[in-house]
Amino acid sequence: MIKDLITKNRTYRRFHQEFEIRHETLRELVGLARLSASAANLQPLKYILSCDSQRNALIFSCLAWAGYLKDWPGPCEGERPSAYIIILGDTKISQSFGCDHGIAAQSILMGARDRGLGGCMIGSVRREQLRKDLDVPSRYEILLVLALGKPKETVVIEAVGPNGDIKYWRDSEGIHHVPKRSLDEIIIS
Amino acid sequence: MIKDLITKNRTYRRFHQEFEIRHETLRELVGLARLSASAANLQPLKYILSCDSQRNALIFSCLAWAGYLKDWPGPCEGERPSAYIIILGDTKISQSFGCDHGIAAQSILMGARDRGLGGCMIGSVRREQLRKDLDVPSRYEILLVLALGKPKETVVIEAVGPNGDIKYWRDSEGIHHVPKRSLDEIIIS
Repeated sequence: MIKDLITKNRTYRRFHQEFEIRHETLRELVGLARLSASAANLQPLKYILSCDSQRNALIFSCLAWAGYLKDWPGPCEGERPSAYIIILGDTKISQSFGCDHGIAAQSILMGARDRGLGGCMIGSVRREQLRKDLDVPSRYEILLVLALGKPKETVVIEAVGPNGDIKYWRDSEGIHHVPKRSLDEIIIS
Repeated sequence: MIKDLITKNRTYRRFHQEFEIRHETLRELVGLARLSASAANLQPLKYILSCDSQRNALIFSCLAWAGYLKDWPGPCEGERPSAYIIILGDTKISQSFGCDHGIAAQSILMGARDRGLGGCMIGSVRREQLRKDLDVPSRYEILLVLALGKPKETVVIEAVGPNGDIKYWRDSEGIHHVPKRSLDEIIIS
């Protein structure tokens, strides 16, 4: 069961923007992160939710998309995310966040996929602009932005070729291909 | 569905040690991490698997358990993990691993829970001893050790009390209690 969900849980960057994601849905998704593991149970992560078009537009303007697709500046109007969850690290609780935000992000995206949604973990963020636009207090470090929506693209997994290239690409029909290393490459003993 | 699995996916530290976990099962769990997100799709994580008692004992001797349970040195013989997955960062692929190991660890533990297993993400590791004992080449950074087994303890979630204390505790019946912050505390806007 979980294998099926993880296989379907691809990184999506184009969405049916008109599809509405409710605030309550975002709260439920953060509820999954809330119940996930945290180093020393400190739970230093905090969250900002967005599902209104004005706030979404502010957040969108701070994001960089799909570094390997040089000719693609990111999703066009109409294909942008319907919602965002911004993951912050509360420096009043901890000065380092280890991989807590990875654990949380994975729980949230699995939950999203389970509801027929999908998304993208974005680390390439103009943090100072985002902090200013959303008035994020300085005590919070901006760790990740999760873009969420109803996926409007097909993403397929490929084997990494003999040249070892892991760059994803989009074919002439708009299908997004993602090379993944083999199990034998990643298990070293 | 996923909510149920995440709710059941507690951190477990005592196991039915005699329960055997097969090497093939560990490979399948790493297969879930393989299909999970990785920053810029670099996939710099590598894995060492262990499910034989000799190697398990070497790994066990490098781990620190449950920092808040001062009187408990870790699981006794008979209650130790049946297997381990060590997550490494391959510095020939990347010098920084972001939160990739959190994403991978969450996928692996969700997969384990889905099979009736459970485990613990351990960051408190005597890394140089582990590197020496298992001959881990210097190109690999030791990021996390996942302990896995068939859980032999009950773990319950509690609300964080008014004093804000997040330390877990074990009651007189051996039940492990874990305070989690409320949704209203962690969602800041």
